[in-house]
This record gives sequence, C-alpha cells and structure tokens, in this order.
Amino acid sequence: METITVNLGDRSYSVITGEGAVDQTAARLKNLRIGSDAYIITNAVVEKLYGKRLRSILKRAGFGVRVKVVPDSERSKSMKTAFDVIRDLASSDINKRTFVIAFGGGVIGDCAGFVAAVYKRGIPLVHIPTTLLAQVDSSVGGKTAIDLPEGKNLVGAFYQPRIVISDIAFLPSLPLRQVRAGCAEIIKYAAISDAGLFSFLEQNAAAILSADREALVHVVNRCIRIKAKIVEKDEREEKGLRTILNFGHTVGHAIETVTKYTVYTHGEAIAFGMLAAAEISVASGMLDKGDCARLRSLIADFALPVRAKNLDLDKLIAAQYRDKKFSGSRNRFVVLKAIGTAVVTEDVPLQILRKALRTIL
Amino acid sequence: METITVNLGDRSYSVITGEGAVDQTAARLKNLRIGSDAYIITNAVVEKLYGKRLRSILKRAGFGVRVKVVPDSERSKSMKTAFDVIRDLASSDINKRTFVIAFGGGVIGDCAGFVAAVYKRGIPLVHIPTTLLAQVDSSVGGKTAIDLPEGKNLVGAFYQPRIVISDIAFLPSLPLRQVRAGCAEIIKYAAISDAGLFSFLEQNAAAILSADREALVHVVNRCIRIKAKIVEKDEREEKGLRTILNFGHTVGHAIETVTKYTVYTHGEAIAFGMLAAAEISVASGMLDKGDCARLRSLIADFALPVRAKNLDLDKLIAAQYRDKKFSGSRNRFVVLKAIGTAVVTEDVPLQILRKALRTIL
Repeated sequence: METITVNLGDRSYSVITGEGAVDQTAARLKNLRIGSDAYIITNAVVEKLYGKRLRSILKRAGFGVRVKVVPDSERSKSMKTAFDVIRDLASSDINKRTFVIAFGGGVIGDCAGFVAAVYKRGIPLVHIPTTLLAQVDSSVGGKTAIDLPEGKNLVGAFYQPRIVISDIAFLPSLPLRQVRAGCAEIIKYAAISDAGLFSFLEQNAAAILSADREALVHVVNRCIRIKAKIVEKDEREEKGLRTILNFGHTVGHAIETVTKYTVYTHGEAIAFGMLAAAEISVASGMLDKGDCARLRSLIADFALPVRAKNLDLDKLIAAQYRDKKFSGSRNRFVVLKAIGTAVVTEDVPLQILRKALRTIL
Repeated sequence: METITVNLGDRSYSVITGEGAVDQTAARLKNLRIGSDAYIITNAVVEKLYGKRLRSILKRAGFGVRVKVVPDSERSKSMKTAFDVIRDLASSDINKRTFVIAFGGGVIGDCAGFVAAVYKRGIPLVHIPTTLLAQVDSSVGGKTAIDLPEGKNLVGAFYQPRIVISDIAFLPSLPLRQVRAGCAEIIKYAAISDAGLFSFLEQNAAAILSADREALVHVVNRCIRIKAKIVEKDEREEKGLRTILNFGHTVGHAIETVTKYTVYTHGEAIAFGMLAAAEISVASGMLDKGDCARLRSLIADFALPVRAKNLDLDKLIAAQYRDKKFSGSRNRFVVLKAIGTAVVTEDVPLQILRKALRTIL
C-alpha cells in the first residue's frame, strides 16, 4: 500500500492506494476524528458487490451507518437527486456527527461531493472510488458537480475530501467498457504531462485492459501523483495551471451534453475530445503530426472509439460555447505542444475548430 | 463615505458605507474587473423602489444587466427558487462574464450568495444590501444559505463577496418592522462584544428607529467593524470564535422553523432567542441578573416583542436539536458573561433550557 499526500495547507489529505486499502478505512477515519456516523452514497451495483463489506468494516469499529442508493448514471447528478439525497441526509442527521462517504465511480463522487460541500455549509467527505476513472482522476482534487439541463457540471463547488481510499481490488469486477473509460483519463495524464507514462501505456495497453495488478498499481499511483502536483499549485483553477487537466474535456462535455449522456461513457467522450484538441494543436502549428498520430494510435490501442456517429457539427459547437471554462465570447482549449506538454490557448479560429471536429465525426 | 476592509487574504474585500455609496457601484466594479454582465437578484419591492437607478448606473458604465425578481420572503430560500434562479442564470450566461448582484435584504443575500457560490463552482458576487439587517449583518462575512423543509439554512456555502456596497440612503423607505428587525442584530453585536455600543443604543433607540442619519451611520459602521474582526479570525466558524455571532440564533431559528417563517421577522425571532440565551446565562451562574434586565429593557425599547405566543415548548426544543451548530447530541448555546462579553457553552441541562424558554412563551 502507498500513501500519496495532496498538500493543500489545512485542507491537505492522504490518498491511500493499493490492494486492501479499504480494510484500513475504519482505523483511518478514527484517526481523522471525522465523526460518528457514515452516510454512504452509492449505486445499486457497488452496493450489491461491496456494500456489505464496507458496512461491516465501519460497524465493527462502532460507526453508525446509513446507505443511500442513487441511480447508476449521469441522472444522479441532477439537482433533483442531489436535493433528494440532501433531504434524506438531513432527516437522518439528528444528534449525530455525520460524514459522507462517496462509494462508487465518478458520478457518485461528483454528486456525493456536492452534497457534502453544501449540507450545513460543508461536512466531512471521504472518497472510496470503485472505478478506474474515479481512482485515477475524479476522486482527487476536490471538484464536485451536478448538471443542469443547460449543461454538464454547471453547479458545484471546490470541496476537498478528508481522505481518499483507492483500493485496486475493486477494479477486476469493472465492466471492460468502464476500464476503457478510465484509460482515457490515464491517456490524458500521459499526454499533458508525462511522456514516460505515455510510452508505458503504449507498451502495456493489453495488460491494463486485462486489469493486470502490477500495471494498474503503476498507472493509478502515477496519475494520482500528477494530479496532486497540479492541484497543489492551482486548487481552484484560477491560475491557468489546473486548466490543462481539462485536455479533451471541452469537446468531450459538449458530446456528452448533445447525446444526453446516453451514447458514450465520459471516457469515450473525452477520447474524442483529446483527438479534436490534438488536431487543433497540429492545425495551430503547435504539435507535430507524428505526435498526433501517436495519440490517435494509443486511443485505438485501448479500443476507445475514434469517430462519433450521428452528431451535428453546429450543435456540438453551440454546446461548447456554454463551457464554463470559456471566458466571455472567447473559446479556450487545452492543446499539446508535444507528448507530455500541454498549454492553454484562446480564440481558436472557428475554421480550425470545425476542421478538427470533422476528424472525429 | 467610509471603506471598511474585511481582511481574508486573497478573499479580502471592501465594504463601502455611507450615503450615496451606490453611486460608486460601476466605478468600483470596473476596478475589480469583475465581469461584463450583471445578473441582479432582487425582490419586487426593491426593484420598484430602486431597480431603475441601479440598472441605469450599471448600463451607463457599459455593463450588461439582467434582473431576476424572486419572492419577497423566506420562500426565496427554497431549493426550488434557488434552482429556478440558477437555471435562468445559466440560460442567459452565454458568451459573457457574468457576476451576481444581491440587491435586497437578508433573504436575497442568502439566496443570491448561494447561487453565486455554486454556479460554475463560484462566480463573482456583489452585495448591495437595502435593509438595516442586511447592512449590519448578513451582507458581510460570506455565509450563504437556503432552507430545507427539515430546517433553516441547512444548505449553503461560505462564499465571500468581492465587494459590499452599503448605502444608508436605502433605509428610510424601510417599513418600521424591518428597521426593528435590523435593530435586533445591532443589539446582538452590542451584547456580545461592545458594551459602549450597548450604552449608545440605550440612549439612542428613538433616533435609530426614526432612521436618524447620524445614528444609523454610527451603528452600521460599528457593527460591520465588529463582524469583520470576528470573521477575519474564524472565517469558516471552525475555531469557536465566529460562533458568538449566533447569540440568540439557536432559539431564534427554532422559532422561525416552528412558525414556518410567517409569524415573526428574523429579528423578532432572535430577540426572543437573545432573551432565552440571557436567561440561560443567568441560570448557569454566568450573568448578573441586572445585565439580563438591561438586555430585556433594551429589546423592549426597540419595540421588539419579548413574549412569543402559541408556541409549544417541546416542539421548540425538538427543532433546536436540528441546529447545525449542535455537535452530536450535545446542545450548544452562546451565553453572556456580561454586557459585551459572550462565550460558547455546551450541554446546558434540559431543565435550565426549558425554564429559560418559558420566560419568552
């Protein structure tokens, strides 16, 4: 097992990784004096597979436990679900010191994180991510969000967890499509800041897709370290540093919005987005064609789709202009200068944008 | 005019007070580079009296302006209203750099503050408080909140404004009952930390109630300074210092919840709460009976009610135990040691609590 610290002053916390990390949950929470009662937010699949184990770990240590199962889809990030959960939490939180455990993937983490951030102006939050995507990306860094009909992640807060417990023992039960979705975020980390990891992925795609223990531990720890370093420098995405983590996400979110979250996984959507951003990088004279081809080839190695079907180019562009990372009427994209080096650029000409999008449609 | 700074590191901001402060709005916002488009959240009364003036100040300076009128009552702090506002904001916020102006009293400030805090994980917020209560208390310090059926202010965030513009020229149009409500918070500041202000209030109750300009400027500035100092030391109410600002609020919130916000103003409710807390202080041997009598007499001088009618003692106690400031099953009250000195106490015996509550029922 390994402990990676996210250094954020009085909001610092540990990410515990490796096999069996979840068994340490109760002892860690006791040490943090985090409260008396766990309010576990999860989905039906995770509850069925691992719910009993987590409850028993907590109960044996004397914690009160209440479980709230929410739908297993982006629907759980609606304002309706968020407020249903908050009201359920409020109705149960009497004479207790309650903390929230987000037990599931990225959707659960976003929704539970938002609930913990705003209930009583913030109660302690624990992430126990059970998907590869949540372990390498969304459980670390404090972004929480729910969606509006007007766009993805439009409501939220920066709210750091008190601890993240990232046990790779959860991963073998993950459907292959979900593993691939996590791999898209891993490719993102490699592309924006770690050429060594990029090469590792090129050489070990098959091992990772088959949930090889050693390969997974390596990439999970590496991604968490990259994210921790970036978040430490720009926690609230105010300095333009954290923005590079959105590589592929502007187009990706637009695809998710336009397809109402029903056609592509988040990972698939950002795979398209990374390809589009790489094409923008090439067309803007920043990236070598060969590097763009390497990215395309790596995405294909992980059996992630490289062409989205039945999408309207104009709708996609309109959806992007709602992106909360855009400033005023200026568009803003994370582009690559090389494999392992990303920068933020503004005012990409519409012509270049359209041409880049056509390569993924 | 006067500028009071709230020193909170990179979240520091100015409170501009005095007559005519609102005329400086556009220039101040330009200096802050706060955005291009104002989204004004207000109520029908304020909009009718002062809406045109504020819009014209902003438009003349080149700001885009959109106005959202919400109901003039605690109903505006419902999750339904908050999300209606957020969706309206999202639908209008395309190709803009929008900031929120909370233009009204405490309810508007709480609701608009929450909207600004969570929309896109936080956009700039400006408070232009138009009631005495909002000017002396709720516009400063960064507390935002909406209510749940389960209790008042159960959802919210700590979110500081970028500037507060507190123009006493708004106050003469305020109904007398609203002036009194503000006076309850002013009495609170005096009771918990400023014996000199307490004496001033004893001598100038009539002048303040008749909106005497000089008296108002004195008390508004004094209260803002007190609040700024306390918030600077304990922004997120984690160190037990900011907690004293809740003097009278535990019982007060319970009264508001039990009467569904329809019988008493917030100020009236906390007047009862301060009396109950003073009685607890006396019964616990902390406060002199004479000081308790002075507080009772000052509250009566401001024609605030000293007895609530038709309230059930047990319901009131049950509502208090939902208070988010309670820790586990321990109750927690702000009590007085003297006029001008408050401390936090826990585990007040139920017998003392019941006896204290009976004095206001």
